[in-house]
Amino acid sequence: MTIEAKFRKLGTDNAPGQEVRQTAAGLEALMRGEALEGRPVDFSHGDVDAHEPTPGAFDLFSAGVASGGVQAYTEYRGDLGIRDLLASRLAAFTGAPVDARDGLIITPGTQGALFLAVAATVARGDKVAIVQPDYFANRKLVEFFEGEMVPVQLDYVSADETRAGLDLTGLEDAFKAGARVFLFSNPNNPAGVVYSAEEIGQIAALAARYGATVIADQLYSRLRYAGASYTHLRAEAAVDAENVVTIMGPSKTESLSGYRLGVAFGSRAIIARMEKLQAIVSLRAAGYSQAVLRGWFDEAPGWMEDRIARHQAIRDELLRVLRGCEGVFARTPQAGSYLFPRLPKLAVAPAEFVKILRLQAGVVVTPGTEFSPHTADSVRLNFSQDHEAAVAAAQRIVALVERYRA
Amino acid sequence: MTIEAKFRKLGTDNAPGQEVRQTAAGLEALMRGEALEGRPVDFSHGDVDAHEPTPGAFDLFSAGVASGGVQAYTEYRGDLGIRDLLASRLAAFTGAPVDARDGLIITPGTQGALFLAVAATVARGDKVAIVQPDYFANRKLVEFFEGEMVPVQLDYVSADETRAGLDLTGLEDAFKAGARVFLFSNPNNPAGVVYSAEEIGQIAALAARYGATVIADQLYSRLRYAGASYTHLRAEAAVDAENVVTIMGPSKTESLSGYRLGVAFGSRAIIARMEKLQAIVSLRAAGYSQAVLRGWFDEAPGWMEDRIARHQAIRDELLRVLRGCEGVFARTPQAGSYLFPRLPKLAVAPAEFVKILRLQAGVVVTPGTEFSPHTADSVRLNFSQDHEAAVAAAQRIVALVERYRA
Repeated sequence: MTIEAKFRKLGTDNAPGQEVRQTAAGLEALMRGEALEGRPVDFSHGDVDAHEPTPGAFDLFSAGVASGGVQAYTEYRGDLGIRDLLASRLAAFTGAPVDARDGLIITPGTQGALFLAVAATVARGDKVAIVQPDYFANRKLVEFFEGEMVPVQLDYVSADETRAGLDLTGLEDAFKAGARVFLFSNPNNPAGVVYSAEEIGQIAALAARYGATVIADQLYSRLRYAGASYTHLRAEAAVDAENVVTIMGPSKTESLSGYRLGVAFGSRAIIARMEKLQAIVSLRAAGYSQAVLRGWFDEAPGWMEDRIARHQAIRDELLRVLRGCEGVFARTPQAGSYLFPRLPKLAVAPAEFVKILRLQAGVVVTPGTEFSPHTADSVRLNFSQDHEAAVAAAQRIVALVERYRA
Repeated sequence: MTIEAKFRKLGTDNAPGQEVRQTAAGLEALMRGEALEGRPVDFSHGDVDAHEPTPGAFDLFSAGVASGGVQAYTEYRGDLGIRDLLASRLAAFTGAPVDARDGLIITPGTQGALFLAVAATVARGDKVAIVQPDYFANRKLVEFFEGEMVPVQLDYVSADETRAGLDLTGLEDAFKAGARVFLFSNPNNPAGVVYSAEEIGQIAALAARYGATVIADQLYSRLRYAGASYTHLRAEAAVDAENVVTIMGPSKTESLSGYRLGVAFGSRAIIARMEKLQAIVSLRAAGYSQAVLRGWFDEAPGWMEDRIARHQAIRDELLRVLRGCEGVFARTPQAGSYLFPRLPKLAVAPAEFVKILRLQAGVVVTPGTEFSPHTADSVRLNFSQDHEAAVAAAQRIVALVERYRA
């Protein structure tokens, strides 16, 4: 494969935040009516001005800078003192032990953790089970390392509200077909659904039966809404702990994305490979930033409950607005801050409608095709936004759905 | 190739900063005499407490945090306003235009830039010309992407002081053998030598003749000592600007390593591929950290001159100490903060002596084998250290050379 061919698959034109590089060429002929007034909202990522970083984060950073060289030059896997703190907190959160010395790595964001985890488990030609829909980078990572993606469907639309809707037969078929790695996000990105205890138990049992490695992206697992229960795969009795890597980070719920921090924990063998690779990818997560992790899972009492309540209120009002539009389907997210409404049939193509939303409504959403070839009629909204601006933006989306309805 | 085999080549046991993970097992039997007293010095990387970050860096970071979401979520290639600032400064520094929009990417450290640049130019089986000795990650990067390394020797020992000593015939042979990428650091890491105008002119001419891409790691190109002249490859008339990527960063001379920042600039096509990959590797350099780059190449008058003078004074005294030891060869570094002395024949193996230095002298150095298979008898010292501590540590190195002399 030539280098050009390899990179052709890594399209980022529709990736969140990259819209500034798009042109509007050719869209004028399709557009109907005037632009809608209103404060622009970028639903492609959370608004850390509306939901500010955890109090105290900057002070921890400052203390890191003040401590100088020891914080600037940590082990590639991150400062041991910080890993010690995190290991016990993550063990308590997930319900299974975390080895601070050998079973935890600090990475530049959870994206960094995902990249290293896939690189450390997928060789050329290896089959990897990937959920559809799921976080768009999962597919790209498998393709970059020349693995073979074996899709497993998540029927979040038809599943009853107690399940995410994973096709467990499909997952077993993927393992039967030779997949030895399963990569998935829980809660699901983009659909916001949480895997049930039964689904996680089945995933654990299947992984054990087929000796598969599971990479569980639990980035949003702290932001859980009323009534949602959550099962940590790594704490399942059936799993071999050396076959599981769990990924988390403070970029989302805690709004610490500007510091670029993530962690991966679990399998010592895989974490060891991840560190070897991190040494040539970026050396380490920014040293001073690592100090911010001292405050992670140590927020003031009530802070997390308040953050969740605010997000739940936005979620509920956006759902009301979107469901008020005929033909829109939107399942209630149980965790995280993503909504993934399916839109009715429109007179323009989905990719065009996404651009029209930006140009005529000042609303940026992520096209459903980023997550699955089967969800072109859906768009993803990160609703971690200013409440009123988000509701007004959702109303503009509905107005344009009506305007462009087929 | 299995994933285990792929990662076996990525050894980091002797990588700078990783010494904490080593054991001393088996060394006791080899050790002679008592430990030497003295303040420990870690020559594996610079001491940012002895040479502090550029004044104002933290204030720029704070301003970045205060500006909120726009600084946290930049384009993957970095904030455009900052790229604009840097493009004009880097153009002035290197003597050739830099395209802020399409020809520059901000990365997590220069390591991040190197990783992306190699990934964006080397496909499986591609031949890559690599200098021996040179920065240890260069070789590992080529191996990770399953390229084939074609070594080109740098005879910094025998070359007269006006040249770095690159084997230009060897470079042409590498191109004749099919190498289409040439990756090198200037000043050379570890030897500290600067390529002469004639050497750079010849590299440019050869790259043009064979249509090769050149990745020039110029991380240390600002820290130049009295009498050193420097030629920027990218400004050579012979080169096709689309075939050159230049890498720099503020981690070294400016001691901003704790922020993890680097840049790559030049070829638009390669930079575009690098950004696509950055999107799945780490998304972007930490957003708030990027703000620190506003002060890069904008230091107070005299600041850089002072920093260079302090390093030159350390360099000169270390050279005196090392050259006072019979059988030690040390060429004078013309730029950067690396010294690469060749030690005389010892009664223990070079790898053992490096560990003994740590255990008996409190001195960490990087083994010469990290840089070339032909430099096992040398060690690398990053002399960006506290002046007195570094001199005392060099005296302890000499004392142990005498103690273990064959």
